[in-house]
Parts: sequence; structure tokens; C-alpha cells
Amino acid sequence: MNETKNWMKIENRNLTTAAGFQAVGLHCGLKKEKKDLALIYSGINTAAAGVFTRNLVQAAPVNLCRVRLENPIRAIVVNSGNANACTGERGQTDAEEMAAAAAEALHIDARQVLVCSTGVIGVPLPINTVKEGIKAAAVGLDRGPQFDTDVAEAILTTDTSIKQSACRCAVPGAEFHLAGIAKGSGMICPNMATMLAFLVTDAKIERTLLQALFNEATDDSFNLITVDGETSTNDTALILANGAAGVEIEKKGELLRTFKEMLNHVCSELALQIVEDGEGLTKLITITVTGAPEKSGARMMARTVLNSPLVKTAFYGEDANWGRIITALGYAGVDFAPGRVDIFIGPYQVAADGCAVSFDEVKMKETLGRRNISVLIDLKSGPVEVTARGTDLSHEYVNINSSYRS
Amino acid sequence: MNETKNWMKIENRNLTTAAGFQAVGLHCGLKKEKKDLALIYSGINTAAAGVFTRNLVQAAPVNLCRVRLENPIRAIVVNSGNANACTGERGQTDAEEMAAAAAEALHIDARQVLVCSTGVIGVPLPINTVKEGIKAAAVGLDRGPQFDTDVAEAILTTDTSIKQSACRCAVPGAEFHLAGIAKGSGMICPNMATMLAFLVTDAKIERTLLQALFNEATDDSFNLITVDGETSTNDTALILANGAAGVEIEKKGELLRTFKEMLNHVCSELALQIVEDGEGLTKLITITVTGAPEKSGARMMARTVLNSPLVKTAFYGEDANWGRIITALGYAGVDFAPGRVDIFIGPYQVAADGCAVSFDEVKMKETLGRRNISVLIDLKSGPVEVTARGTDLSHEYVNINSSYRS
Repeated sequence: MNETKNWMKIENRNLTTAAGFQAVGLHCGLKKEKKDLALIYSGINTAAAGVFTRNLVQAAPVNLCRVRLENPIRAIVVNSGNANACTGERGQTDAEEMAAAAAEALHIDARQVLVCSTGVIGVPLPINTVKEGIKAAAVGLDRGPQFDTDVAEAILTTDTSIKQSACRCAVPGAEFHLAGIAKGSGMICPNMATMLAFLVTDAKIERTLLQALFNEATDDSFNLITVDGETSTNDTALILANGAAGVEIEKKGELLRTFKEMLNHVCSELALQIVEDGEGLTKLITITVTGAPEKSGARMMARTVLNSPLVKTAFYGEDANWGRIITALGYAGVDFAPGRVDIFIGPYQVAADGCAVSFDEVKMKETLGRRNISVLIDLKSGPVEVTARGTDLSHEYVNINSSYRS
Repeated sequence: MNETKNWMKIENRNLTTAAGFQAVGLHCGLKKEKKDLALIYSGINTAAAGVFTRNLVQAAPVNLCRVRLENPIRAIVVNSGNANACTGERGQTDAEEMAAAAAEALHIDARQVLVCSTGVIGVPLPINTVKEGIKAAAVGLDRGPQFDTDVAEAILTTDTSIKQSACRCAVPGAEFHLAGIAKGSGMICPNMATMLAFLVTDAKIERTLLQALFNEATDDSFNLITVDGETSTNDTALILANGAAGVEIEKKGELLRTFKEMLNHVCSELALQIVEDGEGLTKLITITVTGAPEKSGARMMARTVLNSPLVKTAFYGEDANWGRIITALGYAGVDFAPGRVDIFIGPYQVAADGCAVSFDEVKMKETLGRRNISVLIDLKSGPVEVTARGTDLSHEYVNINSSYRS
């Protein structure tokens, strides 16, 4: 624990760490054997905030969540194995039925239920299977807190590991918590592109403030990771705040700063876990763009470099190919002075003022042989710094994404 | 020959088919053994037009060409094996020295010489080697027309084949020609990203008209192909018109229409040859976006689909994965109605109004097993149609681009 922080990470990453929340994950039959349905429930009303995919093609559940976010939310129901995307009007009806089934089983209003789906695109949802699963999950809730790994597992598709993060903060006479789970490992399930994240907190926080803080935290975490540059039809991150801890986060003050730090921490941890599970990854690449005049341009430059197939294959091949990095910067659509750019790979400078710098090939080979590779790009044109994370492009990525249906 | 055309393709694709042009390609020593220097020369002044990379990082020769395009050009000197990019002030001096050496050897003004380079980024040009090569090339010109394959070869880097196209048009009492060569096979030479094209015609045509026609022709050819979505630091396409045929192309009339057709033909043929030589290609993918309200959006959508790693790996795996196609359309940054989109792969419809259509898996397997795959995307929202070409993403692409230096 950092001594300047007045909050701490916790090992028990269960969503139910946050008071008043219950959660269940189980197998309902959308997948062959693995868990494929999760239900997250709050005994009291919550303020909800969410961020959604910017893809113009949006799955039915995304549309539903967007509209309902203003309501006092009580539950989120999530299925994996089917994205309920490109499913037309029937998709919309199915999403509503999922919410209605959860509402009935939990004795709440259907408008208080959010819905998420992830899996194959373009295949109608087997809605009866899902409804049976929801009933079983609601019964499961009565059995008390479940193992959170079940819930974290139930939202996965081709992920190879669960993603969780949690922290707590003690204040005089009380303690509040923030916990989250996520899924994503690139363009997932063979037909699919999805990142999902669910966070819960027992702090009390007004909805519009929660949304503003969540926007900022997701921009600096989930929106700074990339596996293959594909924006999905289902991307959704949701946060629920139920106030059960008896602590209120207000618009100003120390507690707001603490809550922001906790939120940034959990979002960043989950984002990092997603990249680390990136499809076919052999290298985790961290790009820092520094000396930038402003943030959105720096962000765009970092992401463009991380999405360049030539940069990605170069790192896969352990090649210090800075020419590909500066080329990608040049087509990022952001104005900058190429003749000022310095580039470092690991601790070694490879370019100064846009021109080559000779470096020790042996030491560089050692640096590039590691799993974690950091690149520093200094534009020497301003005070802003942005760090983004991505993966290399490996034979295994091609294997994973070309082997479906064949 | 199409009967409605009054021009025809010709088998002799030599640049010197166009009267008054001479060309030489030879080995000067930038590469180990292969030809690496080309000189294209006109005995009389030409009007020149050019289009250049939109990458913010631009090689020294690109800057030189851009400024000199207004002059009455007499020669183009091209080297391969070194891009003269990210080489600072020395690079600019080297580019000027290349032009000066050519001017001296050809007894013309240095301002009448254009310069192109392609190859490794960030390494200073061995200028003396290049200057010796230029002298030898100028001597070679005196020996009369050379084999054009030498010239087409001398501009290549990792290309596996030369790219040429030519046509002629007979008019009462005269005949004029248009011939071109190109290079490119994705991000080329290990450190490099380059497409070069050189066209010559013996028709007479005023410079600003030539530039306007060339802009249009390159937009509909070179700007509609993609191998890996990378925009290079050196991309250059140049056309020279010397009027030696005694035929003038004016701003209106039948001859303008004919010249446009010839120009579109040669640019499209060269562009197709570049894609067909795409790095690691196992499938040539042709995407037609039809029913679009306007061209620039349709172009962007076609290119976004062709650059999607998931679409590319799906075709590599012979998977009719239309969900990935509609997902890429959704993040292309162009407004459209997902619920109206029809998608066909080969002759088979796979999506109607944005939802799945069942198709014959056996017949689809046969279609996807072929080298050439066509995809039709009908937005059903307007009269515009655009066709773009790209490649799949194969293990071989990863091999080629990860194996340098290692």
C-alpha cells in the first residue's frame, strides 16, 4: 500500500465485498459446459452509470442499457455464448424478456434491470434457455454470497482467465468498497468483439457525478488498451452504487479524490488483465507518448502505434524497428513535428530528433526478449503524457482468428 | 479490346513505348546483387504531375518532388534499397545531390530532375554509390532503349514481381501512348512502407489538367488498395507528359474521355499488380460497397473492412464471417443504417437488413477456397458504388514482417 493513499487494494475481490450486493454465476446451456449466465443484484436501489461501444452497429442489450441507465437499478443480468447482436427486432424483444424474467424472479420492476450479452453475432438468442438460467440464478442468490469466481467466469468467452479487482477505504466510523469484474481478450468468441466490465460500490454517489467519474476513469483505462484495433458491437462497462456503506461521495473534497483513485485503480487493473489475456499475445507492449501538447492527440498516436500490424509483427520478431513506429505516428492523423521526436525502446534511445541513434544490439536483444516491452515517444512539444497498452501480432493470433468454422 | 473503346492495351509495356522517353535500370551497389537504380529521361520538356504520401513523416525526396513539380521536368532518378527517410538535413542534401548528379550527366538543369527513394528508413543514403550509378545510367541511355524489365526491376524492394501496364490510342494521322511501372507489396523492405508509380505519355497535356486527371485516377486505383493499412513515408506516383506524339489532350471532348480511360486503366492495372504481390497473400479480396449516398464514405467503409485483422484472418481461414464485416463497417466512422445492410460473399447472400441469412455451407466452402474472393455490401441508401481491393492476413505475413534482423 502506497503511504499517501488512504485506500487499499483487497485480496477478496468478490463483488459481494461491497455491502448489499449479491452475485451468482452458473451454466444455463448456451455453452456446452462452461458457465454462461451471471446475475448481479442489489438489495436496495442503486445509481447506475455506463459507457458503451461507439460502434454504429450496436447489440440489442446495449440499446436497452443506454435507455434504462437513469432508472434506480437493482440488477444486471449477463449471458455469454451469444451476443444478441445483428438480430433485428427479435433481438430487442429478447433483451427485454431477459430483463423481465430477472425482474419477475427478483420481485422488482423490469425497468430496474440492465442486460448484457456476449458471444456469437447474428444468431438469435435461445431465450428460453436464458430464462431458465435466470430463474436458477435468482434461487441461487437466496443461498447467500456465492464464490465470485463463478460470476467472473460466467461472463467470459474465449478469455483464458478471469479478471477481477477490488479495494476498500476506511473513514471514521465506516468503510466502503469498490469491486469489479471484466471480460475481453481481443475479438472474442469466433464471431465476436466484446469487452464487458461490471463494477459495484457500497458508497453513495449521485448518478450524474458517478457517470462523470466513470467516463474519466474508463477513458484512462479501457479506452487506452487495444488488442487488434477492433471496436465491438457489445462493449459495455457498468457501475452500480447502492450507498449501503453509509458513506457519501460528494462533488468536492478528500473523499472524492479517494474515490477517483479507487475507481482509476480498479478500471486500470481490469484493463491490464484484459490486455494480458490478449489473443495470441507473446509481448505486452506499453507505449508512453510524452511531451505532447494535448491529451486526445497523444492518445490517438499511442493507439495508432499499438494497432500498426508492422509495429506489432516487429515486436513479435523482437526487432527494434523504430522506422515503423515513426511511420505509424505519421499517419495517426495528429499534427506534430517529426524532426523533434525522440524514441526509446526499454532504456535505450533509438531515435533522436526523428533520426537514427546507434544502440547496443546485444542489450537491445535482451530487452526485446522479455515479455513486457516499453516504448517511450517524446514529442518534445508540450506537458502532456499518455500511456497505452497493447499486444504483438503473433502466429497464434492468426491461428485463433482463422480457425473458426474450418 | 472492348469495342466501345477507341484505345487498346499493348503487350510492349516498355516506358519507351511513349515517344521521346528513354529509361535505364541497373545495379549500383545499394543492394547486394539486384538492380537498385532507375533513370527515366525525356529528350524534351514534360509537364509533370504527382501525388504523394499523406503521412506526416515524409522522406526527403518527397519534399523535393513536391516543390519541383511545377518545373518543365526532364528526368526522374529512383533508387531502391534505401528510403532516405528520417535522415534529417543530410537526407535533404542527398536528395538534391542525386538530382544534381543526374542533371550534370544529362546536361540539363537540376531543377528539371525529380527524385524518389525506397528501402530502409533511418539510414543515411550512400550518396557516392548512388552518384556513380547515375553516371553509368546516363551512359546507358546513349545505347538506345533498354529492356523495360530492367527499369521496372530496379525500383523494387521486397516485391516478388515487376509491375507494368501500357496502352495506345490512334487518332487521325497520329498515335499516342501511356505506359507505367510501379512497385509495392505492402510495407516493404523490412523497415519500409512504400508504393511508387511512374507513368509517361507522349501526348501533350497542360500541367494543371494533368494533375487534376492524375488525382482522380490515383484516387480510384492506388487509393483503393490496401495490404496492411499502413501509409508510408515515401509513397509517390508521378506522371510525365512530353507531347512528342503531336497529339494534345484538351479540357473537353472525346480525346479527354479517351485519355481518362487510358489513365484509369494503367493506374488500375498497376494497383491490381501491387495487391496481387501483397505480402503473404493467399486471398485477393475485392470489396464492393454499393447503394452508398456518397463516395468518400463508401471508400472509407471498403478500406476499413479490408484493413480489419479479424476480417482478414477470417478469409485466410476461409470462414464466411459476416459478423466481422458488419462490425468493421460500424467503426469505419461513416454514418449508415446497420438495419438496411445486405452482404453477399461471392454469389451467396449472408446477411439481409443487418441480420443473418442461412446459406449453403458446402457451396460457400467452395467459394472461399478460391484465390479471388468478392464481397458485396449493399447499404441500400444511395446511388454510389466503390470497389476496393486487399489481401488476407496469413501466417506468411507475420513471418515476413517479424523475421527482419532476427
